[in-house]
Amino acid sequence: MATPKSEKSGSPSPPTRFAVALFPGFQALDVFGPLDILNLLSKKTPLSLRILAATLDPVSTRTDTTGHTTSQAVVPTHAFADGVDDVEVLLVPGGFGTRSPENIRETVEFVRAAYPNLRFLLTVCTGSAVAAMAGVLDGRRATSNKRAWAWATAQGPKVQWVPHARWVTDGNIWTSSGITAGIDMMYAFVADQFGEDVAQELADAAEYVRNTDPGVDPFAAEAENGVAK
Amino acid sequence: MATPKSEKSGSPSPPTRFAVALFPGFQALDVFGPLDILNLLSKKTPLSLRILAATLDPVSTRTDTTGHTTSQAVVPTHAFADGVDDVEVLLVPGGFGTRSPENIRETVEFVRAAYPNLRFLLTVCTGSAVAAMAGVLDGRRATSNKRAWAWATAQGPKVQWVPHARWVTDGNIWTSSGITAGIDMMYAFVADQFGEDVAQELADAAEYVRNTDPGVDPFAAEAENGVAK
Repeated sequence: MATPKSEKSGSPSPPTRFAVALFPGFQALDVFGPLDILNLLSKKTPLSLRILAATLDPVSTRTDTTGHTTSQAVVPTHAFADGVDDVEVLLVPGGFGTRSPENIRETVEFVRAAYPNLRFLLTVCTGSAVAAMAGVLDGRRATSNKRAWAWATAQGPKVQWVPHARWVTDGNIWTSSGITAGIDMMYAFVADQFGEDVAQELADAAEYVRNTDPGVDPFAAEAENGVAK
Repeated sequence: MATPKSEKSGSPSPPTRFAVALFPGFQALDVFGPLDILNLLSKKTPLSLRILAATLDPVSTRTDTTGHTTSQAVVPTHAFADGVDDVEVLLVPGGFGTRSPENIRETVEFVRAAYPNLRFLLTVCTGSAVAAMAGVLDGRRATSNKRAWAWATAQGPKVQWVPHARWVTDGNIWTSSGITAGIDMMYAFVADQFGEDVAQELADAAEYVRNTDPGVDPFAAEAENGVAK
């Protein structure tokens, strides 16, 4: 593996301690698109990953109100009450479970409490609505799912929402558009922190054709037209 | 939702009963790329999904030999011993866990036993090596992960392996190339069974730019050059 970008430039070492915050009704691919990249990266660079949720019970991709008839359940490794400890990067997915205030309340409170101790916050899809509810996006540029645009942006009236973007970076906060945009964002994050050669090698291994330009967003018109999800 | 293709043509109804076969060391995105599509489809068309494994214990994406330091664990809904009952479509993922004969033995035996009762068998990545070990690909055209090509194809000397393909369809068996190729294959399967308009609507909702041509494979050269994974 090539020398990480951060070593070349003298900036801090790339992060190795990751976490993801799950809630009932999370979107599966919002989580497993980015985490599959981390899993492959972890074969070359030792990383850690906490899978956090309100309790240690398995967390399903559906709830009684999400409307799905198929689902999968993932096992947390830690509860929100354990905190983020020395976690450097927190990933917050979206999903239809974000639409129920009571369902998402503990996740919002966790993100609000965790943010000051993080090096980076990454959100996928309506995960940015969760971060907005937590108040951590106030005054920041951010994007979100394009079909849920009207709802998502209403969760953060003080956020500078960017409708035309595959993903947006503002300081230490990275937010992506809907579902699969999280894959492109995570490759970009790996490129930024571990080096472009590392990111491209992982994408080639996954046989994935990246969108490497955050300004290329074929789905922006749906946000601009206000199409409802 | 538009009238399903199969109703238009008078062919059998599209399948609604799906299953996935998990084993320790499965590749997360091989599973959740296709299943995220099914989850969204299930909001419009009621579907069922069995998550099968050797036991009902959570199944991790890593084993002691896969070399990962991060992982996720998924909860099965049924054991292999329960059989496929009335399942119509079985999805078999790949992953580094396929490389250990003892680790994959029960999954191979399950696929061999289940196949005669299925309407469709779908594999992603080195899932085709598992199907080849089970003998169900003998005499069929199939593809696999391009970096694992030499190993994967050696698991099925009687298979007609196709190195240049994003995915391959031969009768009721669909096989895809590495990891993210499973996403394109599943959209193609949904298009074939439920209609192109349904597949495109789901891809738009996921903000995904599909590869709709199985002959477009930017990663074929890796198989042809024999690059080792």
